[in-house]
Order: sequence, then structure tokens, then C-alpha cells
Amino acid sequence: MAESPRDWFASTDSAGDWMAVDGPDHDIVVTTRIRLARNVAGFPFRARLDAAKARAVESHLAERLKKLELAADQAYLRLADLSSLETELLFERHCISKDLARELDGPRAVFFSRRKNLSVMVNEEDHLRLQVLGPGRSPEALLEQLCDLDARIGAQVAYATHPRFGHLTSCPTNVGTGLRISVMLHLPALVWSKEIEKVFDAAGKMKLAVRGYHGEGTSYVGDFFQVSNQVTLGKSVDRLLADVTKVLPKLVDWERDVRRGVRKEKTRTLEDRIWRAYGVLRHARRMTSTEAIELLSSVRLGVCLGLLPQLPLRLVNELLVLSQPAHVQLLAGRELDDDSRDLARADYLRKRLAETG
Amino acid sequence: MAESPRDWFASTDSAGDWMAVDGPDHDIVVTTRIRLARNVAGFPFRARLDAAKARAVESHLAERLKKLELAADQAYLRLADLSSLETELLFERHCISKDLARELDGPRAVFFSRRKNLSVMVNEEDHLRLQVLGPGRSPEALLEQLCDLDARIGAQVAYATHPRFGHLTSCPTNVGTGLRISVMLHLPALVWSKEIEKVFDAAGKMKLAVRGYHGEGTSYVGDFFQVSNQVTLGKSVDRLLADVTKVLPKLVDWERDVRRGVRKEKTRTLEDRIWRAYGVLRHARRMTSTEAIELLSSVRLGVCLGLLPQLPLRLVNELLVLSQPAHVQLLAGRELDDDSRDLARADYLRKRLAETG
Repeated sequence: MAESPRDWFASTDSAGDWMAVDGPDHDIVVTTRIRLARNVAGFPFRARLDAAKARAVESHLAERLKKLELAADQAYLRLADLSSLETELLFERHCISKDLARELDGPRAVFFSRRKNLSVMVNEEDHLRLQVLGPGRSPEALLEQLCDLDARIGAQVAYATHPRFGHLTSCPTNVGTGLRISVMLHLPALVWSKEIEKVFDAAGKMKLAVRGYHGEGTSYVGDFFQVSNQVTLGKSVDRLLADVTKVLPKLVDWERDVRRGVRKEKTRTLEDRIWRAYGVLRHARRMTSTEAIELLSSVRLGVCLGLLPQLPLRLVNELLVLSQPAHVQLLAGRELDDDSRDLARADYLRKRLAETG
Repeated sequence: MAESPRDWFASTDSAGDWMAVDGPDHDIVVTTRIRLARNVAGFPFRARLDAAKARAVESHLAERLKKLELAADQAYLRLADLSSLETELLFERHCISKDLARELDGPRAVFFSRRKNLSVMVNEEDHLRLQVLGPGRSPEALLEQLCDLDARIGAQVAYATHPRFGHLTSCPTNVGTGLRISVMLHLPALVWSKEIEKVFDAAGKMKLAVRGYHGEGTSYVGDFFQVSNQVTLGKSVDRLLADVTKVLPKLVDWERDVRRGVRKEKTRTLEDRIWRAYGVLRHARRMTSTEAIELLSSVRLGVCLGLLPQLPLRLVNELLVLSQPAHVQLLAGRELDDDSRDLARADYLRKRLAETG
């Protein structure tokens, strides 16, 4: 049955399975996301798509995507039918990109299954952006899921391809497989020890990009970073996967080593920082979303190091999602101005943390 | 029986009766303190007192003060017999002045009753400084107590007086009655609303001095201010008392008005500030004494405004005393370096606040 973003709040796993804690290396790798860029043969690319043709692409895809029996909870939503709050909610869930939510115009849509963490954006930078999201470090399993989705859509839609280059895309960096693997890393110890710049340098040398919490064009907040491959042209899927899976364990070990060092040598300073963050989250009456992420980042580190045994990691992960602006407003059941939102956010965080004692 | 400063920790009212909450206007007037400056006839003033004469003054007074039957717990302590920690403890209790504790040398002593909140400093700026301390705004009652002490000492000791000027003192501003009334005010709302400068101006015009937490030569911390008369020459005791008691209710009303305004118009901002302070005190693992006083100041305001109903004001007043450096070390049972002190302070504050839930 089709599901509205509003329905998400009725379910107990309201922050989504991709915030579950059972992914590999979940103490450092929050999520893995993979996307494929695809275009429909016979239509101009997004940049040259006039209004009528954009509508035609959307109708063409709507008809075919809806026919797929992807999941029981699958839904096809036109952004024009959603409130701006619902659109922002999809963005905050990483279900749609910042561009689709805020930058682009014309007929845009998203086809998705919340339970399977699958989504297909229509009329993003490319006609189609297929995406799958999962907890922890799990690129192989996710890639399998995404390739299956790709094959099923490909059976219904004629993709724009070139015999030599592979899939054709709006931006040349995506030509070939159109694959991007993005891993959201939580690197508080590397930020704290000021080694994070070295991570950027190392990633750059490996042709990996490092971006902020919400991906392209967003800034770093709360020690969360998205690491992803930059160029797909001339590289096979296996090669792209290998590029990321080769580097990732090194970054994870690096962060883990620094955490161990800080834990051992600056025990009390670390504990103080973590408990202060907890104390403010547990008692404040007004809080911006940026402060919430920053404090939750410290608390998350505390949970991973066993310093806050009463707090489940899953709750912290959930609060990272649920304390964002659109979520706070949908929890309140109405649109709120900035100040009321900061009050509602503090109230919500306080209550959820109070439940764990 | 004579009592050592260490014994104070064995008693339940460890912070002293003067931190009780039942004084008039205790929400704003923390304590009232009155002192009299006296010198012994036949000895040079402190500035011209050589080592031998200073010893003679001390012996002369020791013999006579010890004979007074002031209180069951009275004690005569030579500073030379105390550890520097014990001396600092007496200072933190406002039992002796900063000058007696840290600045002056030679044979100094204090005669005191903790339960009666009376103390007599020997070889401070004057040969004798008699002092009484009480909770809230209570100058009349305290003055009576102090005049009684003065009469009893005066019956044993020949005071240096002049038929026209009255009591003679080291500093001309104290000549006459040698009386100083100091009131410790908690003015967080006036500080917050930036009206505190106007308080300083108004006090200056009334010839009242405004000083920091520990009186002369100490700086403001945690919104606590000591207001006292400056000059005694040519003024009767009644006149001096009237000067202070006339102004005091105005300052109290001023702070109370601003508190009411803030409470009404900036409710959530106020609550946020108070609860954040509580949250940090309740959970931090390291804390300087300055931060502790600042946070306790916010919490104190919260208690007085009924925003922290679970916390007794007496506990907050007590913690203001007990979180000071010498107290923290004596609670720990040993001398601590700066960092260990900050850890011990945070531990102690956390535990005491946890008791109230």
C-alpha cells in the first residue's frame, strides 16, 4: 500500500532500518549508500529538458515504476503533491537529495520503499537516480540489492547507453556505471585530535571525495563525514567497489586507534566532554539542530566507548534523524517558526533521553 | 571545647548556619556581615608594629579572649599553627579576611565560634577585627550581637580611643565606630539585563562600595556582590545602619522586579539557561571553582523562582561554599593539584545534586 511520509511516525522504527545498529563497524560507519545514475533513451538530458518533455519523462517513468512489484510498502510520490515539510522530511531521511528537494524545479518525483531503504528519484540531475541505503559498512550486499533494482527497471525502461562508454549521464564524471558509493563516517576522535585534515588529504589522493552530513554541497556538522568515489568513467563496478572497500577499513582503524589513545590518555577530559553533552541534551529547554547534532555526536562516541551504558546506540542514531527541522515539526504536528522548533526539539530530546534514566 | 576547622566536616550543617535559608529576603540577600575595627591602647598600629610588639599584642589578646565565655565551641587559633589549607578554609567561610589569610605576616590569630558565626581577627589591619555573619538581611539583630561581643572584649581590653573621634583605627575611613556593614547580594537578573552598572552608580552616589564575592580586592563572580558602607568617620552607629537599611530594600526590589520581568517575558530563555546550568553541574566530570559558582548562581536563581522545585535553596547555598578550593581538598582529605581539584569538585557536585533526584 502506498505510504505517505507522515505515516512514518506511526511506526515504531520511525527513524528507519538504516539507522539500526547491527551493520558492520557501526561504531564508526553509520550508513552506506549506493546510487546509480540512469537516463531514458530518446529524451534530452535534464539540462536541455523543456517543461513538456520533463512532464513526458515523469509520466513515462511513473507508469513503469508503479508497475514494479518492489515491496509491499512501495510508494510513488510527486513532489508537487507534497507539502514543503514532507519534502524536507524525505531529504532528512536521505531518501531524496538536496538538489531534488530544494534546487531543481519542474516535475520531480520519488519512488521508494521505506522498509527496503530503496528509492528512485525522477528528474534529479539524471532522469533516474536509483539508491539504496543500509546500516554500517555493507557495500557488497547493498550493491547486489541495487543491481537487482536496476535490472528490474531496465527491463521496463530503455536506458540511454553507449556501446563503448556504458551508461550516459548528465555529468561526465558519472558516465559508465553511474555508480557512487557513499559511506557516512562518524569521526569524532580524528576531529578532536585535529587529524581530520590528514583524512581529507589521504582521501583526495585516493580520488575519494569527503562531504558533509547531507552529501554534496552541505557542510560538516557533528563530526559526520560522507566519503565517496568521484569518477566512474572507465572503471568497472568491481573496481569502484574495490576502491572504496580498500580504503574504508583503514579509515575505520585510524579513527578507532585515536579513540583508544584518547580513552587511555585523556580519560577524564573525554568523559567530561561526553557527560557535559549528555547533561545539556538531557536538560536544555532550547536547542538548534546544529547544536543537537554536535552534542549527539559526543554522546554517540560515549556510547560506542561504553561510557554511557544506559543509552542504546540505536536511540542516539534515531535522535540524529528525529531532531532535524522537518522531523521536529512533523512530530509536533504542525509548521513551527525557528524559535518554537528549537523549543520543541529540546523538549523531544529531553523526553526521549529521560526514558533511559 | 576548641574545634579545628577540620571538625567542621563532621557536623551536618557543614556549610555553617549563615548559609541557612531563613533570613529575610534570602532569595536576594545571601548574608549580612558586620565588623568593628578596634585597637589596643599602648601599642603602635599594625603598620608600625615590629615583630616583638606584634607578638606582644597577640599574647595580650590571646590571654584575654580565651577567658571570654562566648560559646561552647569557641576556639582560638594561631594562623602559624594551621596548615595553609585550614587557613584557606577559614577564608572561604568568610571567617577571616583575605588580608589575614594571604597578605599579612607576623603573629596572626582568630578567635571564633562557628555556631554563633562570630569571629575576632587578631593583627589584621587593626589589632582587632570583630565580626558577625548571618543569613539574609538582618543587620539590626547582628549589630546587637556584635555590640555585645564588643562590650565583653572592651571590659578586658583597653581600646585605643580619642575623646572626640571615638575609636582609633589604622585607616582613617574606619575611625569613629569602626563599623562596616556588608551585605552579600545575589543579583543575576540585574547582571543579565545589564542594569548592574546602574547599581554600581547608584551605590557610589550613596557612598556605598560594591565588591566581589570575597570582599575587598576580589572580583565579581557568579553574580554575587558585596555592598557595604565606605566611611565611618563622623557617623554614629545608627546613622551607618540607616544608610545601609535605607538602600538595601531598594536594591532587593530592583532585582526582584527584573526577575519578574525576565520570568514573564523571557520564560523559555530563562528556563533554558537555568536547566543547562543544572545539567552541566549534574553531569560534568571536571569543573573549575569559577565555573561552579557561575553555574550555581543560575541554579540558585532557578530555585528562588520555583523552577527547580526538587532542589532546596540550602543545598545550593551550601554547595557555593563547599565547592571552593580548600573545601574540595579537605573533603578529599588531602592536598590536590589544580586538575585533581577540578575532578574532585565535579564529582562532589554531581553526587550532592544526584541525591535530590
